[in-house]
Amino acid sequence: MTGIGFTGAPLDRNDAMRNDVVAIAAALRSPLARLLRMEGLEPALSEDWALIWDDVPADAQHADYIFLGLYDDAPCFAALPPRPANPTVSRPGWHLLSTLPDDQAAIWGAAKSVIDWHWRHGFCAVCGSPSTVFRGGWARRCNDCNAEHYPRVDPVVIMLAVDGERALVGRQPSFPAGRYSALAGFIEPGESLEEAVRREIYEEAGVRCGAVHYVASQPWPFPSSLMIACIAEAETTDIVLDENELEHAFWVEKADVQQAFDPNCADPVFILPPPQAIAHHLFLHWAFHR
Amino acid sequence: MTGIGFTGAPLDRNDAMRNDVVAIAAALRSPLARLLRMEGLEPALSEDWALIWDDVPADAQHADYIFLGLYDDAPCFAALPPRPANPTVSRPGWHLLSTLPDDQAAIWGAAKSVIDWHWRHGFCAVCGSPSTVFRGGWARRCNDCNAEHYPRVDPVVIMLAVDGERALVGRQPSFPAGRYSALAGFIEPGESLEEAVRREIYEEAGVRCGAVHYVASQPWPFPSSLMIACIAEAETTDIVLDENELEHAFWVEKADVQQAFDPNCADPVFILPPPQAIAHHLFLHWAFHR
Repeated sequence: MTGIGFTGAPLDRNDAMRNDVVAIAAALRSPLARLLRMEGLEPALSEDWALIWDDVPADAQHADYIFLGLYDDAPCFAALPPRPANPTVSRPGWHLLSTLPDDQAAIWGAAKSVIDWHWRHGFCAVCGSPSTVFRGGWARRCNDCNAEHYPRVDPVVIMLAVDGERALVGRQPSFPAGRYSALAGFIEPGESLEEAVRREIYEEAGVRCGAVHYVASQPWPFPSSLMIACIAEAETTDIVLDENELEHAFWVEKADVQQAFDPNCADPVFILPPPQAIAHHLFLHWAFHR
Repeated sequence: MTGIGFTGAPLDRNDAMRNDVVAIAAALRSPLARLLRMEGLEPALSEDWALIWDDVPADAQHADYIFLGLYDDAPCFAALPPRPANPTVSRPGWHLLSTLPDDQAAIWGAAKSVIDWHWRHGFCAVCGSPSTVFRGGWARRCNDCNAEHYPRVDPVVIMLAVDGERALVGRQPSFPAGRYSALAGFIEPGESLEEAVRREIYEEAGVRCGAVHYVASQPWPFPSSLMIACIAEAETTDIVLDENELEHAFWVEKADVQQAFDPNCADPVFILPPPQAIAHHLFLHWAFHR
């Protein structure tokens, strides 16, 4: 499946370079070096809605920059400013993102997740001491106990329970009016993703599922999840809602999902999640390709 | 795919109960309550190689226990002792684990990962202050800034690049003699699992891949990974080894992998990973079911 939001970054992350302080310092000073312009955690966009790349300041120090990777031969960086007193809440600026091609959104998403992680991980969780950036901005080391810390990626399952030609959809109170989506939840220690799919559907909607089929995945930089989209075969159909998680859930007919994709449909049964979200592609896959 | 190590725990994790301090305290005092016996981070095993369950001490305090879930009506717990000065290095006790059925290993794996996480996360990464257990042992809250912290699950891709009837296998210097496995690596912020598969194969072996197919997943409690097994279609075949990651890599013929599964084969081309590891099942799937 292609065309999924926040995927397709054209950068070579070049992990080997991250460990080489001399190479990173040289890359920062390279005339080819490019610096991603950000406004806090949001991407700065040009008049034609593209990411903006600046020169790297001449006095740049490697510990203040994240090495995003090589674009052809150009080393690309994002600045790692000190944590603001009150960082913006990590929610997507949809008005910006909806105009950004997936591959550019992917570059910004990686930078945003890593900066955000540094801001929330200035201290060592093992001993409480301050820590220092290393590995080209992709790790921190404790100044006291030397424990190493790596950016966190939280795997999340997002899934449609299906019963023949019907799929289970739900909405949270915070959703825009009419919007429904696939159910979702964090994978916990000690469970496979298939087990997490079955547990979450049962916890949120009381529906038991059997076989689970993987569909696609997506990094989701709010703050740093890996969304894993699946379809699960429902074995029961009565809905018992967890009202702490969902405001409403129902079984939607495949024909109604197909209609929801029709831009000329004036009165869809529900409003789909936006195309940047993998749930959109999960509905598309189930409704038209399965 | 069934029979994968560390999956199939028969416990209902009952997330709703975790948030209810009164319910957790009552469950601890229940005559049905069971306490998983551990020796440090290792499972204590009975003479017939099963997990051992004890009574919960009468004076048990909820902040000192992790609620593992309900087994039928019996609430199951693991103790959360203070972090030892020098915790055992988190490597599998294979001699123990090889005798433990998958579903019992799964119960232990969840307990082990969560205890291990608490031991490495006694302090708030945001501000450096000590933090306190809550949510039935499934979270910590900072005593100072109130930031909430949840057990970490690190998604890892583990994959066979395949070129027709050949698959790419590699060995790390730490492997037992003759052992080869699938390549593997952590998924990073800002990439899909398919992108991580292609990046890791290229970084470690210099092989470019196209389409990626999901096969299966497994929680891996060393310390707390989610292993995501895939097959990737190779588009190049020359191997350029990253000697920091791998000691050797080669293209193995499918017939030789089939032979490696034959217990009567005296001289296999390579020694498979053990059945508890998802790599074993990935080889099985590719060699016999694809």
